[in-house]
Amino acid sequence: MNREIVLSADLGGTNLRVAAVDRDGSILFRTKRETPRTEDAQEILCLITDEAEKCRRAVESAGKVLGIGAVVPGTVNAAEGIVLKAPNVAALNEFGIGGEIGKRLNLPCFLENDANAAAIGESWCGASKGFQNSICVTLGTGVGGGIIIDGKILRGIDGTAGEVGHICVEPFGAPCGCGSRGCVEQYSSASAVKRLAYELGEQFPDSHLLKNANLTALQIYQAGKSGDALALEVFRQQGFYLGIALAGLINTLNPEIIVIGGGAAAGWDLFLPFIENEIKSRAYREPAKRAKIVRAELGDDAGIMGAARLAFENIAVVK
Amino acid sequence: MNREIVLSADLGGTNLRVAAVDRDGSILFRTKRETPRTEDAQEILCLITDEAEKCRRAVESAGKVLGIGAVVPGTVNAAEGIVLKAPNVAALNEFGIGGEIGKRLNLPCFLENDANAAAIGESWCGASKGFQNSICVTLGTGVGGGIIIDGKILRGIDGTAGEVGHICVEPFGAPCGCGSRGCVEQYSSASAVKRLAYELGEQFPDSHLLKNANLTALQIYQAGKSGDALALEVFRQQGFYLGIALAGLINTLNPEIIVIGGGAAAGWDLFLPFIENEIKSRAYREPAKRAKIVRAELGDDAGIMGAARLAFENIAVVK
Repeated sequence: MNREIVLSADLGGTNLRVAAVDRDGSILFRTKRETPRTEDAQEILCLITDEAEKCRRAVESAGKVLGIGAVVPGTVNAAEGIVLKAPNVAALNEFGIGGEIGKRLNLPCFLENDANAAAIGESWCGASKGFQNSICVTLGTGVGGGIIIDGKILRGIDGTAGEVGHICVEPFGAPCGCGSRGCVEQYSSASAVKRLAYELGEQFPDSHLLKNANLTALQIYQAGKSGDALALEVFRQQGFYLGIALAGLINTLNPEIIVIGGGAAAGWDLFLPFIENEIKSRAYREPAKRAKIVRAELGDDAGIMGAARLAFENIAVVK
Repeated sequence: MNREIVLSADLGGTNLRVAAVDRDGSILFRTKRETPRTEDAQEILCLITDEAEKCRRAVESAGKVLGIGAVVPGTVNAAEGIVLKAPNVAALNEFGIGGEIGKRLNLPCFLENDANAAAIGESWCGASKGFQNSICVTLGTGVGGGIIIDGKILRGIDGTAGEVGHICVEPFGAPCGCGSRGCVEQYSSASAVKRLAYELGEQFPDSHLLKNANLTALQIYQAGKSGDALALEVFRQQGFYLGIALAGLINTLNPEIIVIGGGAAAGWDLFLPFIENEIKSRAYREPAKRAKIVRAELGDDAGIMGAARLAFENIAVVK
């Protein structure tokens, strides 16, 4: 066979996913490993390149591997292939992982951050497929974002654009890890959902939710589904504040579609009405009507699909 | 002479400015008239084309007039040349003024809204000249905005992008004409500066400011300069809230430069420190360091310069 294939590696705080993907977006082979807890960047690099070699060997007979896209959970200098800051994989801070991967595999390597990769992946073959102007919001431990304008990911002048999680929605609100206060991340991320449940607990003495000392977002969701008032208030706030941030983005960017993914999107049916309500009452009518609010479709594959797409796009440029 | 020249018309709520501009950005001839208070779109149309003809005749010997750019204070469908909604010149609502101007003058006509035109003008030959990624914020009766990415004005899918004045900075704040609450326009526009002075008056019994029943933004500024505590608090709030909105834009778009213009930019030295403080404490370090915050340079000419540039750009495309 003579298919065009790229490798893609999505390094998360918990797992490393590596895959071989063809130009149609089919995953031909994949592996998954735990992200090593290490301070040694070389150890992470070796794991990525070992898994990538496995993928390359597995698709040897199917076609030619042309390059690799790599995703890390942090800020990157995409042009130089350098990780700037990856709080959950701190070993990689300021490490030129793109160049190293490329050298070891003898393939052109293209580096991207996780939120941008998810936006590219969803836009290639997920929920925003076929749209040229989209925003992808990932509700995980934090709130990440990727903005696509005229079919191109918006990087900004330093490559730091898209940080929609740090739009302020409550000027004197909860302190945020970024140094600010009241960022939407503090109300709409998975961590925020848990924090809100504990914080709001006192106001809901009848709720059984807080009997559990180690609440998960899923448990809060299940309590909400069975009518627990505390859980419902948590999701109301999650949606209310996310809606405020999205209304601002709709007024500012006038996108066609906003895709919401990540673990804390699990409460979708409980928080969506509050997002929609804020958009309707806060954004201009025309762009508010235009912007579809949809759930992400690629789940944990968003990163590898985005990295693969990025590799295909840039290989063409390198050629 | 054989210069390439365009006409440009900037219709505001108060004045109509029309000019003939050459490719270097020199204004060769200009006129200024009061905007007619009328419900008749034809009357406005006639005034614009009459003034445009004057400009064309005046530059006859200098070169060839190739097209006209027209600016209105409201939302437009640029592609169709139609005004969607112009609250301060309501006669033009849903009027296809671009086509009409073009027909009467026998020139290609390109329509734009005032905030985008100001951004284009400042970027062509004003404060953001030479930058490819800029945001222009106009603090007038309202707060307008224009976003330039990779040298191109960001219109969004319906042409409504750039409405940075309706970013929410106080979720339960002052009601806004747009239907939302707590938009930055309610804290940082010229109208807001006046409203804040009256609202905050009670907290500052020693201030002499409110002895005047018809305060102007200029009077508030002068009081601030001479140390009036009420006036200083007004400018603190103007800067604080504008800083919150700009910090969000910096995190989201990672621009090189943000240009602030409009009448309420007059309090510049009194509010700038509070803008800078919010950006420093709320935006990510790298994009915050990158984004220069500067004052607009073109003043009342921003619109005609933007319209002229737009005409030059699009004539090339039409050819």
